[in-house]
Amino acid sequence: MDLTEYYEQSLMLHGIHKGILEIISKAPVLTRDDLATVYMPGVTEPCRMISQDPENARRYTIKANTVAVVSDGSAVPGLGNIGGLAALPAVEGKAALLKGFGGIDAFPLCLDTQDVDEIVKTVKNIAPGFGGIVLEGISAPRCFAVEKRLKETLDIPVFHDGQHGAAIAAAAAAINAFRLLGKPLSAAAAVICGAGAAGNATAKMLNTLGVRDMVVCDSRGIVSANRIHEFEEDKLELLEFTNREGLTGGLSEAVRDRDLFIGFSKPGLVSAAMVRSMAKYPVIFALADPGPEIMPDLARAAGAFITGTGRPDFPNQISNVLVLPGVLRGALDACAAEITDAMKAAAAYALAGQVPDSELSEDHVLPPVLSAGTAAVVAEAVAQAWEKGRI
Amino acid sequence: MDLTEYYEQSLMLHGIHKGILEIISKAPVLTRDDLATVYMPGVTEPCRMISQDPENARRYTIKANTVAVVSDGSAVPGLGNIGGLAALPAVEGKAALLKGFGGIDAFPLCLDTQDVDEIVKTVKNIAPGFGGIVLEGISAPRCFAVEKRLKETLDIPVFHDGQHGAAIAAAAAAINAFRLLGKPLSAAAAVICGAGAAGNATAKMLNTLGVRDMVVCDSRGIVSANRIHEFEEDKLELLEFTNREGLTGGLSEAVRDRDLFIGFSKPGLVSAAMVRSMAKYPVIFALADPGPEIMPDLARAAGAFITGTGRPDFPNQISNVLVLPGVLRGALDACAAEITDAMKAAAAYALAGQVPDSELSEDHVLPPVLSAGTAAVVAEAVAQAWEKGRI
Repeated sequence: MDLTEYYEQSLMLHGIHKGILEIISKAPVLTRDDLATVYMPGVTEPCRMISQDPENARRYTIKANTVAVVSDGSAVPGLGNIGGLAALPAVEGKAALLKGFGGIDAFPLCLDTQDVDEIVKTVKNIAPGFGGIVLEGISAPRCFAVEKRLKETLDIPVFHDGQHGAAIAAAAAAINAFRLLGKPLSAAAAVICGAGAAGNATAKMLNTLGVRDMVVCDSRGIVSANRIHEFEEDKLELLEFTNREGLTGGLSEAVRDRDLFIGFSKPGLVSAAMVRSMAKYPVIFALADPGPEIMPDLARAAGAFITGTGRPDFPNQISNVLVLPGVLRGALDACAAEITDAMKAAAAYALAGQVPDSELSEDHVLPPVLSAGTAAVVAEAVAQAWEKGRI
Repeated sequence: MDLTEYYEQSLMLHGIHKGILEIISKAPVLTRDDLATVYMPGVTEPCRMISQDPENARRYTIKANTVAVVSDGSAVPGLGNIGGLAALPAVEGKAALLKGFGGIDAFPLCLDTQDVDEIVKTVKNIAPGFGGIVLEGISAPRCFAVEKRLKETLDIPVFHDGQHGAAIAAAAAAINAFRLLGKPLSAAAAVICGAGAAGNATAKMLNTLGVRDMVVCDSRGIVSANRIHEFEEDKLELLEFTNREGLTGGLSEAVRDRDLFIGFSKPGLVSAAMVRSMAKYPVIFALADPGPEIMPDLARAAGAFITGTGRPDFPNQISNVLVLPGVLRGALDACAAEITDAMKAAAAYALAGQVPDSELSEDHVLPPVLSAGTAAVVAEAVAQAWEKGRI
């Protein structure tokens, strides 16, 4: 199917069902005894148990396996800021993926506000019944403040997929690309193109994974100390661990002699000349939406060793669909209070490890997006990393 | 089963399933085409349709059939103020009933706040994706302010079951009791015992249904003008249409010569002597939780013509389980913006009409709580009343 057909099919699918999610009861209510057990008066007993010990909520309620997928609709891929209500089909879709790949009950909450204070307060107020919060389609830099404040406030995992899902997928692909190159990822000379949600998180992720030589470019050029007056907290943080050489200039200067490019910016930003200016055997993950920073064939012709995009119609689709269900599954299984850097790193290595040496190649650095077992493997690694962090 | 067994069974049921609700996807995600249709990139099309016209949300999203059941856990039957988290099993149970009897997808939202302003703001902020809001287990008088302000703010139905579900069920039972007595309900001389959520709403409901001779008693006695300095808005409102004779005193004075008693107060408050002081053939609906204001056999021995309680082990169980699923179903089917007094009255008459003359008796004034067709009949009446109100 081409894009127009996907649009038509999706409109039909979401229209036929009037939304693709359904809430069912696992217990029937057919008899008086059912009624008295599912609801009053019997249900006062599990209520009483939780009022005595809040930890019991994970034993007797949907909190054990339910997450909220929260969006203010300010950054919907391909559409931009369309508001919470209009984002609902996409948020439902994300919930369907969480169920299909992670067995997680995910409920979409689309907000009537885009104010950071209001979002934080609202999510805090509805949080008790959830085992985790997924932030979805919230624009940078607001997403950073929302996530940070919610992590401080809540005792359940808060995960912004647009940041960390994207970063973990890109990091896993980079780990395997460098496996093919016979080098550890920490030896990379990296350039991140785009300093929004995904770019920012990917820079932090690579730092966690030991990459010390890294520059980040935003739409106005290299993130460098001489632009410090332009920056808010998100970019000041990047300066702490990127661009140690004090490079200045634009993307052309940023890519020179580097061997790892990861882009979350705009279609077509990267030229063949830029690829030629990179180090030998460069790895180019051009993940811009809706199309890559440089088309894979063009990049290869200019010397790229490995290319990856967000699209299914080229080799090496790098998608956070591979990440989110497993990470959340692992966090829920471990009753984790948060998702730590160690858990994210464990997820990246587990995802990379899903491609055995025998299958690893320039055109196969990640498992297929729909591979059934991936989420379970990622989940186990994430849960173990949480447990390890508690010792 | 006795009460202890219900407690044990309920704890087991809610524990085995770890919460009794599940969220499923109506669309599988097994192929790349599925993924591109359920989620990106296809899903941008339904998103775009809604961003162009918000009304499209009812065509392409779960808003068409989904309500939030919102509780702050301040008034859970039998337990009192246990907070939002501990109320979750009961709210899940209510959601299961909405699905079982009304085919409605209901999701529990248990709040981390009991502040009226915060509750209103929070519900407003999460409202876009819902077709209706059910308020559950919120204590009086806060529930009145929460409901009133949400009705003013939102363009979807807001229904506090503890008020209107209880009131509609009691009104339907009263309509049929007076049918048996051969009088219209408007001829009743009524006393409402209890001025909390259910008592307050029942007084308003009877007023809507034409009852002009009515007194309300709260825990300190008859609601009368000489106590005006004690009252907040909820009781001042009652004074506008109750106690036209200016009665003062306690429950003993309130019940004298009346032919309809509806109680939502405390077990055992009504004595046989009080029943004997009522008019001939009095109707006694003693709906206090966990036990009635007077036991039915005692009331009958003292001259009661018809008795009803909230319990399944006596004749005439009067339960809002008969009301809520049908009212919400009707409101969703009609895309109603609110639930009006006319819709509530239509629900009461439809529920009463479910008992044909051939079955109507002193021990059978309402259909059984689990009668399968009742919700559909109530729904149709409610939807028609909404349509009629729009002409």
